[in-house]
Order: sequence, then structure tokens, then C-alpha cells
Amino acid sequence: MNTPSDPAGPFAALIGCVFVGTSLDGFIARENGDFDWLTAAGDALGETGYDEFFASVDAMVLGRGTFDTVSTFPEWPYAGKRVFVLSRTLLRSHSSLSQPDTSIHATLGDVLEALIVEGRRRVYVDGGRTIQSFLHAGLIREITITRAPVLLGSGIPLFGPLSGDVHLRHVGTRELGAGFTQSSYEVLSDT
Amino acid sequence: MNTPSDPAGPFAALIGCVFVGTSLDGFIARENGDFDWLTAAGDALGETGYDEFFASVDAMVLGRGTFDTVSTFPEWPYAGKRVFVLSRTLLRSHSSLSQPDTSIHATLGDVLEALIVEGRRRVYVDGGRTIQSFLHAGLIREITITRAPVLLGSGIPLFGPLSGDVHLRHVGTRELGAGFTQSSYEVLSDT
Repeated sequence: MNTPSDPAGPFAALIGCVFVGTSLDGFIARENGDFDWLTAAGDALGETGYDEFFASVDAMVLGRGTFDTVSTFPEWPYAGKRVFVLSRTLLRSHSSLSQPDTSIHATLGDVLEALIVEGRRRVYVDGGRTIQSFLHAGLIREITITRAPVLLGSGIPLFGPLSGDVHLRHVGTRELGAGFTQSSYEVLSDT
Repeated sequence: MNTPSDPAGPFAALIGCVFVGTSLDGFIARENGDFDWLTAAGDALGETGYDEFFASVDAMVLGRGTFDTVSTFPEWPYAGKRVFVLSRTLLRSHSSLSQPDTSIHATLGDVLEALIVEGRRRVYVDGGRTIQSFLHAGLIREITITRAPVLLGSGIPLFGPLSGDVHLRHVGTRELGAGFTQSSYEVLSDT
């Protein structure tokens, strides 16, 4: 199959959405995957809009790191949602996967094909490298970033290299509790 | 002299202030120093608060890269302000420096000593590595970030490695024009 470097390609119908918490210096997790600095705020954040966002998507695409992290949670946080995991290594050890409505795909192209075959349109994309892959392929259309008032100095970055500038439309910014802020953007399709 | 790793050290009187524009992915300039994506917005940004901020500081500390960039401007943008340039290489070629009220210092320690000797307290710190050096030394107290609605993918990052988490107090966030947002923070001194 074609690699989806052309946003106007066969995957143009997909609406990749990012809804993510970061430190002020742009990390979505520490090197070891922890996001204690994010969860520590707890209810003090107030209404983040996550539930409404989560209800709005047809499916999720997770990277291996995110999958491993959420798999340690006492409860599977994506109950009732179709989940695609992007991982070469998990594919070689199927037995480690026991979540409902979840499948594993080795490459971005495989995930995209599966999304199209199943008719999924609005997709919640999570995990640093996975988000970067979708962005690079021109498949992210909406980005909501909730920023914590902390600098970590190192960790897993939200953003990475791109082949050119990506212009965004600022949809809105608001203050949450505990010093958090939340900004939403639409990716402009002419970039 | 001591390296200023202890924020309660002899330089505790200094109030390092950052007032900087970044891309959404945290770059203050492209690899070559350009910040066309920032200046392109021009007057559409509206009132950024820069003039008031600039009037509030006793001195500036610039890195070599920032100094080189502003030296190409048709007009010296820091007229009337005492400027300290942090650069080992410029020190070896004094003749390249012809701005008023400007001196060059090879090390962070030298700059800090000079600031103390001259009784400067509130200092505008600019340039990626210079900001990072001051942050690392615990000498940044105020940070205002104006974010452009663009992802660059690469460039000169605002933030870098730290020896531990740096906690901030969110002072306020507002929307400017052209899709820019501006957030102000105070660095909490217990970190």
C-alpha cells in the first residue's frame, strides 16, 4: 500500500484527534512513562472536557508505550471503544493482549487500512510516537493540549520532527484548576 | 567563584525574567535563528505587554545567538538598557561589538557577578541556552510565553534538561490576535 504522506490520499476521510496533557516544556510523560505530575492534580482540574471528547470518537489508536501504561490501570480505561494498538513487538507475543475490542497492527499503514475497512472516521490518537506518525502523515486534524504548570526537563515529547511547518487555527484557550490551561487547535489543511 | 546551583546563594536577589515567543512545539527560533513565523503576525497580535515588561527590567542578558540576530536589525532594539552578552567567542573578537551599554562575559558566573556589582535586580534573560542556564541555576522567577499557532518540527528549543521538576504558579493566560496565546508563570521557590 501507499505510505500516507499525502493528506489528500485514501485516508483523507480520517479525522485524527489529539487530546493530551503535557508539562509546560512539552512532555506527555516521564522517560519511564509516568505522568504523576498530571494525575496529582486530580479533581482540582475541574471539568477537562475529556468525557465529551472521548464520547465523540469512533476509535482509538495507541502506541505500545501508552498501551503498556494503561494496561497497568486497575480498570481498562477504554471500555466500549474500539482500540487499535500500533506495535511490532506486541504482534509477536499476542498472548499479552487480553483487552476487548482491541487489535494489534505492526505499521501505521496497517492501522490506517484497518480504520478504513471498519469505517472509522474520528480517531483518538494517543502516545508520543504515534501522534508524531499521524502528524507527519497529515492525518491529525484536531489538537487539544492541557498544560500542567511544571517543567520536567526530560521525558517523552508530544511533538517531534516534521517535514515542514504545520499551521494551526486556534479554536480556544481556557484556564482549568490547579494552574492548568487548555488550548484547542485545528490543523489547517493547506499545510 | 561558586557555581550558582543553589538558588539561595549569593545571587538570590536576582529576579530573572523570561518574555519569549515560541511555536506550539516549543521553539524560540528556527535552527538558523529566524523567527519569521513570529514576526509574520505583526500588528495582528495586538498588545503583547512587551513594552511594559521591557520597561520593568534593570538589565538584559543575551546569549550569543540572540545578540547576533538582533545585531542585524536596522535599529538596536535595546536602546537605553544595560545589556550583558554571554559569549566566550565574542570575548575573543571584541571589535565585533559596538552597541552602547553592552558588555561581554565568558561565563554565567561572570555575568552574575557583574549584575550584582552593578546592583541590577530585575533581569530580562533571552536566548535558548542562556534561559536554560539561568533556569538550571534557579535564577528564573517569571516566565511569560507567547505561543504561535504553528508547529515547526525543529529549531532552538526554549527549554532543556533540568536537575529536577520545576513547579510554577500560573499567573494568567490570555488570547492575543492571530491565534496567539500568552501565559505567565512564577517559578515557585521551593523547587
